[in-house]
Amino acid sequence: MIGRNRWVIADGWIPPTSTGPEPDMLSHDSVCMLNPNDADAAVELLVYFTDREPAGPYRLTVPARRALHRRMNDLTDPEPIPRGVDYSVVITADQPIVVQHTRLDSRQPENALMSTIAYPT
Amino acid sequence: MIGRNRWVIADGWIPPTSTGPEPDMLSHDSVCMLNPNDADAAVELLVYFTDREPAGPYRLTVPARRALHRRMNDLTDPEPIPRGVDYSVVITADQPIVVQHTRLDSRQPENALMSTIAYPT
Amino acid sequence: MIGRNRWVIADGWIPPTSTGPEPDMLSHDSVCMLNPNDADAAVELLVYFTDREPAGPYRLTVPARRALHRRMNDLTDPEPIPRGVDYSVVITADQPIVVQHTRLDSRQPENALMSTIAYPT
Amino acid sequence: MIGRNRWVIADGWIPPTSTGPEPDMLSHDSVCMLNPNDADAAVELLVYFTDREPAGPYRLTVPARRALHRRMNDLTDPEPIPRGVDYSVVITADQPIVVQHTRLDSRQPENALMSTIAYPT
Repeated sequence: MIGRNRWVIADGWIPPTSTGPEPDMLSHDSVCMLNPNDADAAVELLVYFTDREPAGPYRLTVPARRALHRRMNDLTDPEPIPRGVDYSVVITADQPIVVQHTRLDSRQPENALMSTIAYPT
Repeated sequence: MIGRNRWVIADGWIPPTSTGPEPDMLSHDSVCMLNPNDADAAVELLVYFTDREPAGPYRLTVPARRALHRRMNDLTDPEPIPRGVDYSVVITADQPIVVQHTRLDSRQPENALMSTIAYPT
Repeated sequence: MIGRNRWVIADGWIPPTSTGPEPDMLSHDSVCMLNPNDADAAVELLVYFTDREPAGPYRLTVPARRALHRRMNDLTDPEPIPRGVDYSVVITADQPIVVQHTRLDSRQPENALMSTIAYPT
Repeated sequence: MIGRNRWVIADGWIPPTSTGPEPDMLSHDSVCMLNPNDADAAVELLVYFTDREPAGPYRLTVPARRALHRRMNDLTDPEPIPRGVDYSVVITADQPIVVQHTRLDSRQPENALMSTIAYPT
């Protein structure tokens, strides 16, 4: 079994503006998940903020032997993630997965990227 | 309990100049912390330099179930962090937290980003 | 013996367009491997997608005491990696190695970079 | 005692050209080290390549309670690191340290950055 059942992304922030053609160049935070194992993984994201109680859980499925890269921008249920607001994410899965966090920031015409493996716990 | 009580950022450096509207585009180093647990975390940052004894401790609180993203630029007590100077940071918390380090460098008109999970110890 | 026998990159994506002189400025994902030990490492990459079964294995050798940085763009056997498609990679080696993942994105005229240590497992 | 005695950077590469005022905007790879402990650390870097035996050891001292950010560009003894050539680095210290790897790439007029915690072993 490859992976871990809980991961943390501490630096969440969706840049509030964008430059360039959508959807590719839309500023975004992505949670990139791999489930390399043989059972589907039910995943819950809990989103933490600076000045209010956490939002969520946001529920996703990462099927067996599949990658799922999900933009935080696209989460709407139970509520959208606000733009330009600091947040963190705890990802809990019922099967081991691997998580990497990536941001594309196109506020200025030439985009910037950052990425890191999430923290496994 | 999610997280660790001590984290290290080895590559600290606040770019000395900036391009674009502040505060968003001000060049900065950020220490992004999550306290996903149920007790407030008292956090101390000790800042190490190349040619002098460490500065600090800088004291912060990350409340229970809250994210706190703090720019190193904004630390002033006991002393500001100089711009354009190499440093490292040891973050010690009395409750487990998770730490990610991010830099925005806007010395040139199009900003650059970098980010990494800190080193848990 | 330095390293681990299995590593995971969750956020794979080869930007579909490029700006600037090739090969240096061609948009790419790189798998950067070091084999610091004294026996050659036989490495297999398995590439996972969102909506199909994994591709591979892609077979490489990282010789003893050698670095091998391989662009995912250049893998063709058993099949090329499609551009502009989300994927993840599991790297399995018969000797311990160390793996770092780096992307150069030159879709816009000024390139962006991101890098992270892969997840050892 | 904070840190580890051996670290690995898999993706070393010094961009061969630069844009903008030196030394700040010179393209570089940096090895950023912190020695938060109370004894000086004697550090040796061994640099691995694709098609030749490793170079080094390069010897540095990270004094007690000090940060040392060293550009790979500046290493000359026993030999300079070639520009535009893939390499990896194994960092061995006789006291625990923490290592982060950062690249500034200014081949194009607007610089790009990437950073990651090194692999502790």
